[in-house]
Amino acid sequence: MATKSSFVDVDADSHFPLQNLPYGVFRIPNCAEGPRPGVAIGGLVLDLSVVASHGLFDGPILTNSDCFQQNYHDKHIGGLDEYNDEVIIDADDEPTLRDNSSLREKALLPMNSVEMVLPIVIGDYTDFYSSFYHAKNCGLMFRPENPIHPNWFQLPIAYHGRASSVVISGSDIIRPKGQSHPVGNSPPHFGPTQKLDFELEMAAVVGPGNEPGKPVDVNEAENHIFGLVLMNDWSGTTISPWIVTLEALEEFACDAPNQDPRPLPYLTEKKSKNYDISLEVAIKPAGEEQSSVVTRSNLKHLYWTLSQQLAHHTINGCNLRPGDLLGTGTISGPVPESLGCLLELTLNGQKPISLNNNSTRKFLEDGDEVVFTGFCKLILNQIAGKWLQDWVWE
Amino acid sequence: MATKSSFVDVDADSHFPLQNLPYGVFRIPNCAEGPRPGVAIGGLVLDLSVVASHGLFDGPILTNSDCFQQNYHDKHIGGLDEYNDEVIIDADDEPTLRDNSSLREKALLPMNSVEMVLPIVIGDYTDFYSSFYHAKNCGLMFRPENPIHPNWFQLPIAYHGRASSVVISGSDIIRPKGQSHPVGNSPPHFGPTQKLDFELEMAAVVGPGNEPGKPVDVNEAENHIFGLVLMNDWSGTTISPWIVTLEALEEFACDAPNQDPRPLPYLTEKKSKNYDISLEVAIKPAGEEQSSVVTRSNLKHLYWTLSQQLAHHTINGCNLRPGDLLGTGTISGPVPESLGCLLELTLNGQKPISLNNNSTRKFLEDGDEVVFTGFCKLILNQIAGKWLQDWVWE
Ligand SMILES: [Ca+2]
Ligand SMILES: [Ca+2]
Ligand SMILES: [Mg+2]
Ligand SMILES: [Mg+2]
Ligand code: NI
Repeated sequence: MATKSSFVDVDADSHFPLQNLPYGVFRIPNCAEGPRPGVAIGGLVLDLSVVASHGLFDGPILTNSDCFQQNYHDKHIGGLDEYNDEVIIDADDEPTLRDNSSLREKALLPMNSVEMVLPIVIGDYTDFYSSFYHAKNCGLMFRPENPIHPNWFQLPIAYHGRASSVVISGSDIIRPKGQSHPVGNSPPHFGPTQKLDFELEMAAVVGPGNEPGKPVDVNEAENHIFGLVLMNDWSGTTISPWIVTLEALEEFACDAPNQDPRPLPYLTEKKSKNYDISLEVAIKPAGEEQSSVVTRSNLKHLYWTLSQQLAHHTINGCNLRPGDLLGTGTISGPVPESLGCLLELTLNGQKPISLNNNSTRKFLEDGDEVVFTGFCKLILNQIAGKWLQDWVWE
Repeated sequence: MATKSSFVDVDADSHFPLQNLPYGVFRIPNCAEGPRPGVAIGGLVLDLSVVASHGLFDGPILTNSDCFQQNYHDKHIGGLDEYNDEVIIDADDEPTLRDNSSLREKALLPMNSVEMVLPIVIGDYTDFYSSFYHAKNCGLMFRPENPIHPNWFQLPIAYHGRASSVVISGSDIIRPKGQSHPVGNSPPHFGPTQKLDFELEMAAVVGPGNEPGKPVDVNEAENHIFGLVLMNDWSGTTISPWIVTLEALEEFACDAPNQDPRPLPYLTEKKSKNYDISLEVAIKPAGEEQSSVVTRSNLKHLYWTLSQQLAHHTINGCNLRPGDLLGTGTISGPVPESLGCLLELTLNGQKPISLNNNSTRKFLEDGDEVVFTGFCKLILNQIAGKWLQDWVWE
């Protein structure tokens, strides 16, 4: 458990109070040294490579580990295996750090002086489809006679996404092009998609992995989740730079929905829990100052829990590796104001929504910036991205 | 172009004649040094890290590159970008190597003294479905009224596979378990799969990648393919240890099938080609000496070419990275003896096939070893794996 006071001053409204010391990877602009892992504390970033190289870890795992001194691109995944509350305790009440001002200046950097990079090397990225409300709403639009197939209630459905296209918050996203099939038997048409959307999701970052052929027990699955990020699954997938540890979220755990039919034994949990995390999406049109909140949802609406997702993922013998990303799927809630994507919010473009600046949206327009915020009592994190259409075919 | 004589003796029936100098990554058992890249020449492996550290590269790209001296796990992907015929020319008629016997002993290792490891760090693995015969046969079994949807002829369909489960030839493969749905409205059943299959495929290994939002032109796509491996897409995906360069295969290029309807401009090639590579699958039951060849196919049967697959993969703006793996999909030919998987060969288990030892197979049995061989005039490579059922649930 993290201690709750520190020699580091933290603003009351900070996204990163002492209860939330998330893990990220940063670099210093124009600096020859490569990216390195850090922990956010208020408006500061604690450089874990400095902490490690000065021997400030004193817990049993990290004291002799070089996991934070290795080259980011090569090895930082290792850190996820070993990062734990040893880091947190050392970060906030370590006397060497507190009393040595030149070391402190080197180890604690103003957050606005660093540039965040993708916090993990993602081996594989899987996206689930675990919100009942989202599944039902999508089903009603495209298969009204049979909106949710019975197997949806038997296992957490997922698809396998592309690791290369996962980018960090703030990255420009380019409107994809491809084939579409207008009407009837006409030949397919090539061009930019007309239905750009966001998808409000969170994602679990895998800590310790599992061996091929050795599934993770659902009641142990939590121990394989390092933490959570906010995720926008649009074209390219954007994640937040800071991974909030599952430990920091523990006090916001809540009961998961009752599951009927009862899942098979390998998916049955002794204690089935979600996390009460408020989620919000705002759109800021190009050139506007103000953004408009377009939906408010909550992670607690998931039907399938994170543990069930992870256990199911490994049940066929599939191996997960540290840094793998497991998206929840679009998180929609039960009321119209809590739907997790424009497809649902506008009924596939039939009912445009209004923004503060009196414009409307069926889907996203070029230049729109989309901002996700997640918060418990403590504020989780933010994720932002902007659509660009900067290349033209032919 | 590779020269065709060398101071290295190569057996006439070697899998690795001088026309085929494939790239792989190996390690020396019980040696502290990590894996490193090498080139197969006859029964020897040329250690590229030794070649590089002795300054034996004299071409414009590799002379000053450290791509083969870097740690395998960290950086060897870089080698794929830069590996080219400079390696080949230097490998076979480099006088320093020829005349310095102690260096030669260090640089040229007997193949049976090394252990091959996965030759690439696979960022993402995509599997296409590009054989018309395979698509038709599968369609006829499961949707006889509509075996091939019209869109199959408009673009090379693919699914995204899991990089973590790609293993090297010789790895044990474990029979997967999961939910299946026996009959009617009965509840789902949990257990090991009854229909273990192999899938005869090849895969392109991506060399230079592309930036997000910058698709690869179909007529340039070949330049983004480093080479080909044999691939068995079963549970876990097995690839051969040696990547045969596209350059070595060039003399086996042949015309691709005519495509009707004509594909959209972004898929239309100035010259549409396949490669004439004979493929063979043998099954060796546990405890048997003899294996039985169960099918013979050829890469040239693909409807969609490797270049079309790669160009289509990037057309929506998706970025490929060096080391990405693009499977062809099961390669079936037009005749019954050329089908690429047991599903087709046995009509989904209805028509068992016979092996040399008088046993029959509907699907694979525990302990079966499956061996793929690919050959042009030059022999390509081999891939082998064995089914195991070594863990039990509950
Ligand atoms: Ca999604
Ligand atoms: Ca396949
Ligand atoms: Mg998603
Ligand atoms: Mg396949
Ligand atoms: Ni990777």
